[in-house]
This record gives sequence, C-alpha cells and structure tokens, in this order.
Amino acid sequence: MTAAAAGKDSPSSSTVRGTPLLKDELDIVIPTIRNLDFLEMWRPFFQPYHLIVVQDGDPSKTIRVPEGFDYELYNRNDIKRILGPKAACISFKDSACRCFGYMVSKKKYIYTIDDDCFVAKDPSGNEINALEQHISNLLTPSTPYFFNTLYDPYREGTDFVRGYPFSLREGTPTVVSHGLWLNIPDYDAATQLVKPRERNTRYVDAVLTIPRGTLFPMCGMNLAFDRELIGSAMYFGLMGDGQPIGRYDDMWAGWCIKVICDHLRLGVKTGLPYIWHSKASNPFVNLRKEYKGIFWQEELIPFFQTVVLPKDCTTVHKCYIELSKQVREKLGKIDPYFTKLADAMVTWIEAWDELNPSGTAAEMVNGSSNGK
Amino acid sequence: MTAAAAGKDSPSSSTVRGTPLLKDELDIVIPTIRNLDFLEMWRPFFQPYHLIVVQDGDPSKTIRVPEGFDYELYNRNDIKRILGPKAACISFKDSACRCFGYMVSKKKYIYTIDDDCFVAKDPSGNEINALEQHISNLLTPSTPYFFNTLYDPYREGTDFVRGYPFSLREGTPTVVSHGLWLNIPDYDAATQLVKPRERNTRYVDAVLTIPRGTLFPMCGMNLAFDRELIGSAMYFGLMGDGQPIGRYDDMWAGWCIKVICDHLRLGVKTGLPYIWHSKASNPFVNLRKEYKGIFWQEELIPFFQTVVLPKDCTTVHKCYIELSKQVREKLGKIDPYFTKLADAMVTWIEAWDELNPSGTAAEMVNGSSNGK
Repeated sequence: MTAAAAGKDSPSSSTVRGTPLLKDELDIVIPTIRNLDFLEMWRPFFQPYHLIVVQDGDPSKTIRVPEGFDYELYNRNDIKRILGPKAACISFKDSACRCFGYMVSKKKYIYTIDDDCFVAKDPSGNEINALEQHISNLLTPSTPYFFNTLYDPYREGTDFVRGYPFSLREGTPTVVSHGLWLNIPDYDAATQLVKPRERNTRYVDAVLTIPRGTLFPMCGMNLAFDRELIGSAMYFGLMGDGQPIGRYDDMWAGWCIKVICDHLRLGVKTGLPYIWHSKASNPFVNLRKEYKGIFWQEELIPFFQTVVLPKDCTTVHKCYIELSKQVREKLGKIDPYFTKLADAMVTWIEAWDELNPSGTAAEMVNGSSNGK
Repeated sequence: MTAAAAGKDSPSSSTVRGTPLLKDELDIVIPTIRNLDFLEMWRPFFQPYHLIVVQDGDPSKTIRVPEGFDYELYNRNDIKRILGPKAACISFKDSACRCFGYMVSKKKYIYTIDDDCFVAKDPSGNEINALEQHISNLLTPSTPYFFNTLYDPYREGTDFVRGYPFSLREGTPTVVSHGLWLNIPDYDAATQLVKPRERNTRYVDAVLTIPRGTLFPMCGMNLAFDRELIGSAMYFGLMGDGQPIGRYDDMWAGWCIKVICDHLRLGVKTGLPYIWHSKASNPFVNLRKEYKGIFWQEELIPFFQTVVLPKDCTTVHKCYIELSKQVREKLGKIDPYFTKLADAMVTWIEAWDELNPSGTAAEMVNGSSNGK
C-alpha cells in the first residue's frame, strides 16, 4: 500500500475551510496563574474551540480570559469540591495541575499549551497554526516498527522509501503529537545555567514517529493527544507544593505513556508544529525543583526501558494500574516519594473513572481495586 | 555534561580552512559503468581526497576520470585477479560491487556516492559540501539510547533537552552517517510506478541517531562510515548477474550493520547531508530486480528484529560470522539463495582478512573457520 492509500493527509487538506477540524471533539487545556492575554495572538486558531483553564495557586485570584472565548475554569477549590479526598493526586503550585483538565474534559482529543507560548512563524514568515498540524499528526498513522528515512511517510510529497516492508505501511493509530519550540528551548536548569543565551532558531520541517522501545523527553508545553485512547495514562504525577520534586511532571507522563503505547501498539509522533516559547524560567528556581530528578532519572530510565507489561494488560487502565504496582515495587526503594506516587497513580485512575463512567471505566474499577 | 563538553563539533568548525578534514584518512568509493563526468561538479569538495572507482560491467570498456583527481580503478578482471575464487562474493552488474572498494581501501573512513548524484543546494542557495557534513556526523557521538527531541544535540546552537539523562549525554561512537536525497527520492519500483512524478523538495535541517533496536532502510547512494570500526560488516551481498534479486544490496548491509552496531554499542545517524539525485531508474527494470525482495523482506525484517548475538561476539568480525550462521539456519529455509548468501558472507570476511592482515584480522581467521 502506498501512503496515499493508507490515509495520507496534509494540514491544508485536513481543514475544511470555514469549519475548523475536530471543533466539537477537542478541548484546549491551559494551566495558568495569570490573565490569559496570550490568547489574543491565538484567537484566529483557538477561538472556535472550547478551553479548559486550570487555575494554579491562589484560588481567590481572578483570572481574566479575553472576550469571545468559550471556556470553563477550575481553581483549587473547584478541584477539591469535585474530587474530594482524591484531589490529593492533582499537583498544586506546578503546571502538573493541568492533567485535571484532561480528566474533566468530555472530548476525544486534548491540546495543551503553556501561557508563555505564542504563535511561531515558519521560514516563509507565515504564522503556524499549531493546532491544525497537531490534528493532522493525530489523524494520520504512526510508524513505530521501522524507521522511514524521509520522515513522516503520510505527509504530502513523500512516502515510504525503498526497503520499507509493505506489511508495515498501514502504520498504527497515533495517540500523541509532541510539538516543539522556537526561541527558548526546553532545557534543564544545568543547561540553562551553562548556556543562558542559547535560542532555538532552527526550524526542522519534519514530523517523525518515536520508534517502539525508545523513550523520549515529553514536554507538556505544546502537546496534543487522543484522550479516549491514552488520556487515562496522561497523569502528570505529584509535583510542586509539598513534593520533593518539580518540572518532571510531563517527563513522568511521557515515560509512562510511551511504555504503554509500545505495549498496546499505539503511536507517538514528535516534530512539527513549533510554537514560540517566549521566556525562560529562572534556572536557580528550576535547579531547586529539578535536582532530585537529575539523580532519580538515572534510575527511572533503566526502569522504564525494561518494564514489561503482561499480556493480559489489554487496556490503558490495566496497563496503568500494572505500572503503578511496578513503580511501588521497584522505585519505592529509591525514595518513599515513589510509593506515594504509586498511590497517586491509583487514585488518579479511580478519579478518572468517577468522572468518566463508561464501560471501560467500570471494567477498570476492578483493575484499580486490585492495584491497591 | 553538556553537549559542548562532550565534543560538540559543527561542519564549519570541523574544517581547518585550507586543509580538508580527514584528507589522508578517507577514501571516496564510486561504483560506475560510465565516464565520471559527474565529478566535475564535486571537484571543489572531492579533489583533495583519494578515489576508489569500482568499474561494473564490461571490463574492456575504458572509464574516463576527469583530470586532476587522484584515483585507483578496479574492473572485474582486477577483482578476479586480486581475490581469485573469492571474487565470487563480489556482485557483478549491480552497484553492490562497490563494497570491493571498501575492502581494498587502507583508510579509516569511506564515503560512497553514486555517479548520478550531484551537489545539492540548501534553502539559502548555498552548495552543500556533503562530505564535510558526513565527517562532522562521524566525528560527533550518536545517542541511540534515548531520543533527543531537538535532534542532534552535538550540533551548534542546540543541546540535550530537559529530562535527558546526564549519564547518556556522552553518547556512543558514530560509525555510519546516512545522507539523504533531494529531487528523485529513493523509492521502490511499486512506489515509482504509482508516483512517477513525485520529487523530494523538502530540506529537513536535521541529523538524528537511529535509536537502538530500530531498523532502517539504508541507501548506498550517499553514505559514509568508519571502515575501521564497521567496514567488515559493510558487505553489500550477492546481487545482479546470476542472482535472483537486485537493489537490496544496501538494504541488506544496513540491516546487518544495524544489529551489529546495536550489539556493540555503536551509533548510526541519518539526515543531513543532502545530495541532488538526478535521475530515476526505470521502474519496470527495478520491479524485475526487486520483486522477490518485496516478498522476502517481510521475513527478513522479523529475522533482523529478533536476532540475538551472543555476548562473546565482541568484534565486528565475530558478530558478522555469527550473523552468517543465523542467516544460513533461519533464512536458508525461505530460499536456497540465502544459503548461498550466508556462504558469501563468510567468503567476504575471509577476503577482507586476506587484504587487511592485522591483529584483528588474524584473530578473525579462526572466527571465520568456525563459521563454516
């Protein structure tokens, strides 16, 4: 089968002019502590969609959302009211709180973006519709089982190259689209300190599948995913207030979803679209948040590289509960934090099921009870 | 360690002006059946280097090499004279014959290019010094154990992103640099037939490591490698005259070297540099050469994806002999061709050792005897 036959789609053809694609099937989740003036620049692209704003920090503060956007907003009091004691699994004073938005959404797809991210321009000077590119990435298959040297074979003007097995050309459903950043790169505190002036100016015109068995550092700044297929594993962990670590929320989620995607034969893409990341966070503050993570990740990566999920883990829920058990068993030895995190993973699934009572969810209530 | 500390190098800094880098350590291998007029365009970049021309087809024909190039040329009679009966492992009437050039070279590095490949231009209109980029790729480490979302972290202006384990930032030696093609993409016959007019016009400004455990379709058109570290596995197989298959020479080599690189913790990169591929080969002729390969690759890929090399395979030679045994045992059932190919793999190693008598080679005479 050629890529054309396998459902090739390009960003331009994926938008019926006048009707934004997936308008009623996608929510935009924004964690914030400030007024959302950044939305003004995104208005032409985001206004047709519903926004879920997760207000971090002081719940008595009022967050202003520009006129004309359709949104719902949750502050800490709302989260506590809705989840009760289970609200403990949602981080406070850390952008990890965004995953509450994934849980309350009722849509098939989520796009999440940080409030210091603006519209970037492509090398021709055109404003990039990041959401449209993410949707295109999600609606075309991934190819995790064999590397295509001309990158995404489903993109217009390209295909699978000579030597690519035909049986693998149908690909596998894409459930995560990881976008990149121009201007301020997503560096850790140490690299920020060493290279305070480095800016990302290189526009790499490619989307590619992260191969099966390969982990990657997933950044939550510019990220889209299929909530129905992978949402319940998109838990951003325990970070920030009262926790020994921060800034590993998206990394944690990325490692978890990748091993689950590999197990369930689902695809993860990275590359386009770019957003313009406007300001670097304070490297000294970041170092304090990250430094335990810098040690811990040396043990976390080998753990995730060797995790084996049993064959009977046939759903994301089952995989996630199984993963929580292995986290408790194998990472609990590193630090008591990981036992607490394993508990929170189970609480997250229970909370997800409460807010999303469906056939799958019901099935998983058992799964999560077993996990305790 | 930051990328800067780990030996970051950029194409521009890798050339000391006036002294082409690796001038006395790299041979350019060109398989051909025609006069090498294409070298005129490459003169500014290739003239300082030594060329090894492997003349395919009629040995009585004279191949003209433009004035001023330093070269040696081998035709079929030369190959027979030098290798005797072992010449049977070198393909005839197929560009697979190029691997004879790898064997007779005495240099540490090889760059091989097809004679229908010309100098490409980058998006700014500058001519691309493909060789310089390959050298830069080979002289900087690879990162096969974890994916860096900003691509090659050793490139100037970029680095490892947040969440990339520090213990993995030293990378691993790069032994293969796989370059790409603008204009005519490297498609199989079927795709050529379906999309006769598709041209590759997209310049993707990136180099990336093929992750460990992932196979890729290696094209021999624009390829550089470390001959000392991986050369003896760069065998392009039995193709063309008298064989049931063609156009899988580079693919075969790519699958073999990748599993060996993964086992020995060596790196393979793909991406930049681009060359301009001028003319598409005839899709009908290609279909005749390829059609058995299209079936066979469906069994070859699962074979290479699951090959396990024993721990005592600590050198490329040992790995290659072990691989030949597994090819005989597991692929011999598909078609008698693979038994012949397994024999040829052993002959190749024996011939390599004859022409490259060194400590390593001597050690491997035993290896290859065991392999028979």
